[in-house]
Amino acid sequence: MQEVVRFEPRPEQYVWTFGGASPAMSIDPGTVLDLYTEDCFAGRVRSTADLVSQVCEFPFLNPQTGPFYINGSEPGDTLAIHFVSIEPARDWAVSSTVPLFGALTSTRTTATLQSPLPEITWIWEIDKDKRICRFHAKDSAFSHNFALEPMHGTVGVAPANLEVRSALVPDSHGGNLDTPEMRAGVTCYIGVNVPGALFSLGDGHARQGEGETCGVAVECAMNTKVVIELIKDVATPWPRLESDTHIMTTGSARPLEDAFRVAQHDMVLWLMELLGLSAMDAYQFASQAVTSPLANVCDTNYTSVAKVSKEYLRSAEIYRGVHSHLREISKNL
Amino acid sequence: MQEVVRFEPRPEQYVWTFGGASPAMSIDPGTVLDLYTEDCFAGRVRSTADLVSQVCEFPFLNPQTGPFYINGSEPGDTLAIHFVSIEPARDWAVSSTVPLFGALTSTRTTATLQSPLPEITWIWEIDKDKRICRFHAKDSAFSHNFALEPMHGTVGVAPANLEVRSALVPDSHGGNLDTPEMRAGVTCYIGVNVPGALFSLGDGHARQGEGETCGVAVECAMNTKVVIELIKDVATPWPRLESDTHIMTTGSARPLEDAFRVAQHDMVLWLMELLGLSAMDAYQFASQAVTSPLANVCDTNYTSVAKVSKEYLRSAEIYRGVHSHLREISKNL
Amino acid sequence: MQEVVRFEPRPEQYVWTFGGASPAMSIDPGTVLDLYTEDCFAGRVRSTADLVSQVCEFPFLNPQTGPFYINGSEPGDTLAIHFVSIEPARDWAVSSTVPLFGALTSTRTTATLQSPLPEITWIWEIDKDKRICRFHAKDSAFSHNFALEPMHGTVGVAPANLEVRSALVPDSHGGNLDTPEMRAGVTCYIGVNVPGALFSLGDGHARQGEGETCGVAVECAMNTKVVIELIKDVATPWPRLESDTHIMTTGSARPLEDAFRVAQHDMVLWLMELLGLSAMDAYQFASQAVTSPLANVCDTNYTSVAKVSKEYLRSAEIYRGVHSHLREISKNL
Amino acid sequence: MQEVVRFEPRPEQYVWTFGGASPAMSIDPGTVLDLYTEDCFAGRVRSTADLVSQVCEFPFLNPQTGPFYINGSEPGDTLAIHFVSIEPARDWAVSSTVPLFGALTSTRTTATLQSPLPEITWIWEIDKDKRICRFHAKDSAFSHNFALEPMHGTVGVAPANLEVRSALVPDSHGGNLDTPEMRAGVTCYIGVNVPGALFSLGDGHARQGEGETCGVAVECAMNTKVVIELIKDVATPWPRLESDTHIMTTGSARPLEDAFRVAQHDMVLWLMELLGLSAMDAYQFASQAVTSPLANVCDTNYTSVAKVSKEYLRSAEIYRGVHSHLREISKNL
Repeated sequence: MQEVVRFEPRPEQYVWTFGGASPAMSIDPGTVLDLYTEDCFAGRVRSTADLVSQVCEFPFLNPQTGPFYINGSEPGDTLAIHFVSIEPARDWAVSSTVPLFGALTSTRTTATLQSPLPEITWIWEIDKDKRICRFHAKDSAFSHNFALEPMHGTVGVAPANLEVRSALVPDSHGGNLDTPEMRAGVTCYIGVNVPGALFSLGDGHARQGEGETCGVAVECAMNTKVVIELIKDVATPWPRLESDTHIMTTGSARPLEDAFRVAQHDMVLWLMELLGLSAMDAYQFASQAVTSPLANVCDTNYTSVAKVSKEYLRSAEIYRGVHSHLREISKNL
Repeated sequence: MQEVVRFEPRPEQYVWTFGGASPAMSIDPGTVLDLYTEDCFAGRVRSTADLVSQVCEFPFLNPQTGPFYINGSEPGDTLAIHFVSIEPARDWAVSSTVPLFGALTSTRTTATLQSPLPEITWIWEIDKDKRICRFHAKDSAFSHNFALEPMHGTVGVAPANLEVRSALVPDSHGGNLDTPEMRAGVTCYIGVNVPGALFSLGDGHARQGEGETCGVAVECAMNTKVVIELIKDVATPWPRLESDTHIMTTGSARPLEDAFRVAQHDMVLWLMELLGLSAMDAYQFASQAVTSPLANVCDTNYTSVAKVSKEYLRSAEIYRGVHSHLREISKNL
Repeated sequence: MQEVVRFEPRPEQYVWTFGGASPAMSIDPGTVLDLYTEDCFAGRVRSTADLVSQVCEFPFLNPQTGPFYINGSEPGDTLAIHFVSIEPARDWAVSSTVPLFGALTSTRTTATLQSPLPEITWIWEIDKDKRICRFHAKDSAFSHNFALEPMHGTVGVAPANLEVRSALVPDSHGGNLDTPEMRAGVTCYIGVNVPGALFSLGDGHARQGEGETCGVAVECAMNTKVVIELIKDVATPWPRLESDTHIMTTGSARPLEDAFRVAQHDMVLWLMELLGLSAMDAYQFASQAVTSPLANVCDTNYTSVAKVSKEYLRSAEIYRGVHSHLREISKNL
Repeated sequence: MQEVVRFEPRPEQYVWTFGGASPAMSIDPGTVLDLYTEDCFAGRVRSTADLVSQVCEFPFLNPQTGPFYINGSEPGDTLAIHFVSIEPARDWAVSSTVPLFGALTSTRTTATLQSPLPEITWIWEIDKDKRICRFHAKDSAFSHNFALEPMHGTVGVAPANLEVRSALVPDSHGGNLDTPEMRAGVTCYIGVNVPGALFSLGDGHARQGEGETCGVAVECAMNTKVVIELIKDVATPWPRLESDTHIMTTGSARPLEDAFRVAQHDMVLWLMELLGLSAMDAYQFASQAVTSPLANVCDTNYTSVAKVSKEYLRSAEIYRGVHSHLREISKNL
């Protein structure tokens, strides 16, 4: 029977960065973590009267549950994080606009002289039984049910280069990737940069469009189970994902074409390895095989995903088969 | 019974631009066109020994079938192009690398001092009965079947602003959008810029990954049936698409985030109109509803698509219901 | 004695594109042209009450004087355009904001949901004797004299690839480069793409900051003398400039780093040729020698300039010495 | 008489980040620091046989001298750093290419499948008496004297948002701005993010072209005198500079147009304050007045500078006149 460790942080236990925080606890590879994660607003935006700029305290945004020191992990290894389940911890979620944040507004760096967009908060209802979340318009009577598709926006480890990064940043250490692909049933692979890896996660979304256009998804506290595994002596320069049906690479950079390049380049490298192809053959193969769902086009770096069906991969062994192994563990929980 | 006009251009009849060419013929709205389109290499790359830089003659790339003068169309109207069928005209297709073209190489404008990648041609087999196309690696014995998913890379009208654009360029007049969404069953809406619209199409792909990473899809001559309709007094600033299940917007620009912005912005405007939402409510709605499959990240402008399920749209009437109407015509052919 | 050809277009003679227009006249290399150019608003914005969006008629912006068919010029040659003098033709000039145009506003492609900036017209006084132009603030009593530094924003030839481009576009054919370096005493080199080259110019600026931040300079009709020379069998892929003291390259692209790359890359190539350096030595040399004044960060493509002092070049012969030759002709006029 | 504090770090005292390091010492505002700074390679590249990838140990690049805790400084204040003198500490300097780093090569994020450029080291001679530095080509007998124009690439404080950033990164906390404008006689203003500010500097350049095209300037250990002053209760969101003749703003972001926007936007804000102009008048004023010399187009963020002559500013008081004050102190040292 698998050990399951429950951790529900007290308010003062949340961390706001990748790197720079002491471990919440140490765990062995193979451990199942049963975690509570607070929403990206630290639970402070609770009604349409709560505006982010008024009730939140910068830089205390996007609280992370963790970090976890993974025993035995060292730079050059890869951490495998398998999502067993991601379940909303409340019957409501929240979205909003945040001044000078999002894809369809000027921002701090896409600086213009225009006035910011209005700041608005939307409260979404969540019905876990029916697996729906319900949108209510602010300016009309319109409302609509969306499918509940829970995911984590933020999953990462301590960065390389002696850095400490805000939990709002996505990069090669993971972090705020904000891809809807980070859902239950998926294994995420991230390279270890420091001893113990210092894994944490947060930023649950009841659902999110691709690109997170307005900068904020349907934000929700979550109860999430993950199994952590360690793949020794295998480096992973940029986060990758694996589901039962697809392999995926991610790139986080600006401008967006660089995020695309990183993800596609990493997919070419991966296909070379999995299929024994030359670089040019893998380039051709990926060019015709890949789907490219955007993750976020609003964060400090933008994130692009490259996705290839496992049908193309035949019997190639992926990360020593760890996804299947973790899937098995997951089923037996 | 619908009039069907067959047009198979003689070699000297192909055109290489949007705008600047005399109409191949004039047709009335409602006409079904049964067209032959040559591949993007003008049919000159026919074996792995044919290299684009040697057998093609710049700027005579991406031959267009057309243009068609649509009787009655004027600036401020919208042309609806419904794809009835797109069928490979050969049992082979071709892909390649082209020096200094593609997403994972330096280019003429992403200029570096590095050597170009090798120039390589791949010939793909096409089996129309089995609906597959087959990839053969150059540097190993690897081969693999992909689903045949025919589409047109290039669909457009004469541009605005007195311009003539190469058929290799995607922009607000359509052109080389290179999105896999341009498939049979889909209606494409493009704004008319000059009297007669001057519609043409070309660049058939047996299939294509999202982003067209290496710059070249599985290029194939096609026999394609389209029905053309005219929507008077409705402007369409950027190309849009409609299938039985989705509405889609496109943006073409550099950097890629601007292509994303254009498509998402246009989707927000469209949702405002279809659902009677305020701008901010439509922004929130789109942010949670949209999928964002990339089209191309290699052409003169990059193209991003925003896609929303019709399930979200209830009974909203889209472009006066022309898609359903054309779908009916299509079924009766 | 040098032949001087005066050409002052009648209103209906202006052209609005590069390519696609019949020559105003044919001239031999060596001809001195004495030209009148209208301002970018076709002279329609004449007081602070005239707003661009109201008094101008799109796409009839940025009128060009020309094009001139240069006898004997063919693709693969280079046109040398030496600016003898650029003199304001009026005692006033105009600047403005234009809705959704400029660097510090959202635009048609950097699309946001924000309201556009206010549309404002400023009339600048010009005192040719004192060589000043005077700014008057709209919202306060502030006014200030700036040095008169006349230049042409737009200089170009017919583009390659069968295209016709709006006069608002900068690219490898020149066009709307909007660099303050295009001043009297400078020779501009542009590659010929079509027989006769079809050179034209326009868009005089009484002065302009680097980057043309708000999108509009101090726009003024000009009387401009240029001498045209033809350099046979020398290709020039991107526009270059030469003054008595510097050589300059230009790149026009998006994003701005690509414009920078193009200009720097071309400077490396030029230094290799002029100094007999290897590519890597020229890269190192340019990296420490170059200044990089931005031209425009508002047009369809952005333009970056790379500039190297002739002190570094010793006795290297530049374009067969044509600048010195034209300088001599210029002095004798 | 001004207190002068000499600090020459021992090898183990260098720091590699902004933020995250304990202060080397505390000083009072008004202190003159006489500092030794090691070159960006930590002094390990000493001959053309030393290649960066072989002799340097990542992430131990760009050693910083500091950080200094400035007594009394708190978030919301501005630190003024006046450069009294910057003098090469050796009679040689070094430049190089670094694999996958620089503007004219693919990089880790502008990822391509091409081979990296060759890795080369150039040793430059420095003659402080003659104020020259001498370039020797690697592949030919060419050599050339350049003017010695010493500057600091890296000047900054601890960042906001709980972050620790590599010394290779430029951003709103300063850091690796790599602008040739950071020279003797200039005052740099940076906003304080944490108590004590934690100022450090490094990365001396004997000279540098604008854009630092190959990614590496003429790198040299320096002896540098700075005077530090504190401006209480004045915030400075992005680093600014002031010389006897100009005011300058900086922006660091990707893509490069965003760096440009940040700098120009901040210049508009500054001109509003200094000249009492409205936002739109200041936008117009800046658009015609500004020069825009690029700083770097190679680092993690690109840096753009906006520069306005003080002739335009009349008697406006800038940062309470601290530059003049520090200039006086500087002259009396």
